[in-house]
Amino acid sequence: LRDDAAVLAVPGGGSLIISVDSVVEGVHVDLALCTPADVGWKALMGALSDLAAMGARPVGAVVGLCVPAATGGGDLALGVAEGLAEAAGATGCPVLGGDLSRAPALMVAVTVFGTVDGGQAVGRGGAHPGDALIVTGPCGGSAAGLRVLRDPGHAPGSDGATAASADAVAAAYRRPVARLAEGWAARLAGAHAMMDVSDGLALDLHRLADESSVGFALDAVPVAPGATQDEALGGGEDYELVVALDPADVDALTARCAAAGLRPPLRLGSVLADAGVRTLAGKPLAPMGWQHRLD
Amino acid sequence: LRDDAAVLAVPGGGSLIISVDSVVEGVHVDLALCTPADVGWKALMGALSDLAAMGARPVGAVVGLCVPAATGGGDLALGVAEGLAEAAGATGCPVLGGDLSRAPALMVAVTVFGTVDGGQAVGRGGAHPGDALIVTGPCGGSAAGLRVLRDPGHAPGSDGATAASADAVAAAYRRPVARLAEGWAARLAGAHAMMDVSDGLALDLHRLADESSVGFALDAVPVAPGATQDEALGGGEDYELVVALDPADVDALTARCAAAGLRPPLRLGSVLADAGVRTLAGKPLAPMGWQHRLD
Repeated sequence: LRDDAAVLAVPGGGSLIISVDSVVEGVHVDLALCTPADVGWKALMGALSDLAAMGARPVGAVVGLCVPAATGGGDLALGVAEGLAEAAGATGCPVLGGDLSRAPALMVAVTVFGTVDGGQAVGRGGAHPGDALIVTGPCGGSAAGLRVLRDPGHAPGSDGATAASADAVAAAYRRPVARLAEGWAARLAGAHAMMDVSDGLALDLHRLADESSVGFALDAVPVAPGATQDEALGGGEDYELVVALDPADVDALTARCAAAGLRPPLRLGSVLADAGVRTLAGKPLAPMGWQHRLD
Repeated sequence: LRDDAAVLAVPGGGSLIISVDSVVEGVHVDLALCTPADVGWKALMGALSDLAAMGARPVGAVVGLCVPAATGGGDLALGVAEGLAEAAGATGCPVLGGDLSRAPALMVAVTVFGTVDGGQAVGRGGAHPGDALIVTGPCGGSAAGLRVLRDPGHAPGSDGATAASADAVAAAYRRPVARLAEGWAARLAGAHAMMDVSDGLALDLHRLADESSVGFALDAVPVAPGATQDEALGGGEDYELVVALDPADVDALTARCAAAGLRPPLRLGSVLADAGVRTLAGKPLAPMGWQHRLD
């Protein structure tokens, strides 16, 4: 079992990119810090981010929703469904169906279907030495939002980051956005490898480098408003995309983003041939981030 | 959110039938009564049964697997994956990918993809007055198996049913089989409506009748070896298929089943025009079975 998206050849022609992502109360979300609708939103966006990272657009989703049987289970299910519908509307990804069940804790398993319209999906393993590494936006916003929600008495943090209201920072945690248009633009601009920052920029960069058998040298990491550099490196759930592409194609990507009304891509650094060298500002970068451990 | 299968038009041609089904520890399964591999098997078979009920064949599945973090979580995940692989092998349905997560309890959400190869999927709503009602096999085996597993001191039950070993009865609970070949044959034989007996024959017959705006008169209910009539009517998880079709097509279905090496379909009764009449042997039949309640 891997958490990558799979490609399915469809009888009768065509193919679908399929990905599944689960959100579990007490593991990925805390209902004291976000609403049931936030959970539904986050569940669909998390699954859609896997499509974004392949340069795909969504065509639909199905949901396995498990809610506790206690009083209010029906309201909880309705709240999650509302957030799913909001995210579906925001991304143009219809929820086609689902399954509703009881469970000891709230769990939302979302399976999404996408397409590259006959093109080639972008994987993690294609980064070449000499490629530019860019990111679609600053990182750490979701982690900063979680910090603010857990400790509302403290103003959002520092480290040279732009000041931001607590509400705006919290929204980065509660309502993250899958970067579907950015991923589509990056694929068309010739991206060699792409990945979403779902588990932390540093950890996900190491994974992309592992899959591509390369190293990297980062010049700097763009930090989201209200976030710290540690949050930007290890926070995860930002759903920004890291893209490796020929340096000659960066201007084309920037132009595509501008034409589509998207934020300009931000330079992170370069891909190196030596897989043993992985640095930020000349110092070794540890794979900080969210690790899925089972024992 | 409904628990029906959805049909997705695929960009580039073709279409997929998609269904999602969840199995949750403590709700659908008890790990004291079955192994992790049994849970994996049951999860995939439960989802595949939805395809069988539409007359579809499977082309693939993805899995959202959530396991507790306690010691043994890794073994639990591996056991479930083994059962998934066994069921995948038995049905020719590859597991294409998945997502692994922690959770307070074991949960397996399976999304399956199927096709009718350009044909028309069979729904629940097409039963006509005068149709014959048949079932692909005797019911209650899974419920009898659960009873035997819960109370191994008692021999399997009675009610005129064939004697059966406790192991064979338990297997009906631990390793149920989605009736994919039977559903395919029934669609080709002209089935008007079809449904799997996942929540109990009586309840599922009422649902089929509700969707078709018809009644029914059952002559008798075939009872699985070791099961009681109550288990056959209200047990669920047998995954046998109930089929409504023109009485003139029953012989063709029987011949198709024989040619494919399948068990002969069994006569249940007839579809009636009056939706208010729903009887077994002349007496009103209550919708016994597994209801999904949330409050």
